[in-house]
Amino acid sequence: RSGEMAKLTQLIDNEVFRAYATYATIVLLKMMLMSLITAYFRITRKAFVNPEDTASFGKGESAKKYLRTDADVERVRRGHLNDLENIVPFLGIGLLYALSGSDLSTALLHFRIFVGARITHTLAYLIPLPQPARGLSWVVGYAVTISMAYKVLKTALYL
Amino acid sequence: RSGEMAKLTQLIDNEVFRAYATYATIVLLKMMLMSLITAYFRITRKAFVNPEDTASFGKGESAKKYLRTDADVERVRRGHLNDLENIVPFLGIGLLYALSGSDLSTALLHFRIFVGARITHTLAYLIPLPQPARGLSWVVGYAVTISMAYKVLKTALYL
Amino acid sequence: RSGEMAKLTQLIDNEVFRAYATYATIVLLKMMLMSLITAYFRITRKAFVNPEDTASFGKGESAKKYLRTDADVERVRRGHLNDLENIVPFLGIGLLYALSGSDLSTALLHFRIFVGARITHTLAYLIPLPQPARGLSWVVGYAVTISMAYKVLKTALYL
Repeated sequence: RSGEMAKLTQLIDNEVFRAYATYATIVLLKMMLMSLITAYFRITRKAFVNPEDTASFGKGESAKKYLRTDADVERVRRGHLNDLENIVPFLGIGLLYALSGSDLSTALLHFRIFVGARITHTLAYLIPLPQPARGLSWVVGYAVTISMAYKVLKTALYL
Repeated sequence: RSGEMAKLTQLIDNEVFRAYATYATIVLLKMMLMSLITAYFRITRKAFVNPEDTASFGKGESAKKYLRTDADVERVRRGHLNDLENIVPFLGIGLLYALSGSDLSTALLHFRIFVGARITHTLAYLIPLPQPARGLSWVVGYAVTISMAYKVLKTALYL
Repeated sequence: RSGEMAKLTQLIDNEVFRAYATYATIVLLKMMLMSLITAYFRITRKAFVNPEDTASFGKGESAKKYLRTDADVERVRRGHLNDLENIVPFLGIGLLYALSGSDLSTALLHFRIFVGARITHTLAYLIPLPQPARGLSWVVGYAVTISMAYKVLKTALYL
């Protein structure tokens, strides 16, 4: 089966596909970082949601007081959900875009702006920066995804 | 590297793959629309969640009253989360299904019913339509995804 | 177009890709199961969120009392959201990893541990098991995804 393996390797050797693989992985790692930040705030703020998570603080009322919401925890969670809502479309549409025969420089422009916009969005959410920083970074990532979707539909449309 | 590019273009030239690309992009654009509808209701209902989003309404108590939940905003957000829960499986399983050598008419039937069901689900959630409209549209999309998963496992199973 | 079809079939014939297809489908079916468990608890606990969902219980106050949150329903929903946060990165990074020319036994090891960890995570969340069962299963799935991301970036990096 080495012939088939070679063909798969050719896919990952294509520069547009390699660029997609790189930026998709970076933005997914950034999204995964939100889980660690949530855990960090849950532990430092002592704000948990599952009773079994507070068992180490003792039993009964002494542990129950740590079952609470915390403004910082909720902020990170909103940023995480916003990532899911926006990175899932990028993953799907971006993969199809990378297979649509776009030229390398245009593809790199799309991928770089999207990932830059999402990193900015996270910083704007967590610091937090005054609006319209978060709103604008969201719009930029959204517009890049729409632009890729347009190219995919123009190339592949089969209804 | 034009030889590799040609191979990628062949992938997007395959009709089943093009159908997947088309319907996956459409249903992702539909999901992205939920963000705009949420923003529309947040602004018209003046119901925000982040203090920095209400800064333009003034300082202190006058702005704080806009940090509140709104029934319409929450309804759109539930529809958006339901999209994520159902469209993510469609994206992954559908991609593998499109690579599993299904015939074109069967594949189109799956993709069209899924996208139709999800558009119906959104309309049923937002209007809202009386049950079982939303429930049935959810079941139909779910069943289509299970049917594609069966085909993928039958073709590709390697444990 | 039978020539192109053959090429697509070659992709699904590759053993690493077939292993990815199998485990990705299994873990997505597991995630989809969370929707059914949520529905089961909503119906048996009579805990709904949309007014139209309680219409069959009668009108006015008699139905309104079923618009409430239930601890078991919320627990399943948290497990479902945690699945989304962790399975989306696995889907994207795992697909790229499967195309990165990893050898079969290493790839199988990654896929099997990830899927095992996520099934354990769900059991730990729903039973629930005492900590650190849920925490450890989460860490294992997270670490497997990081390991695959490292391989993807090492193979494909194109910034």
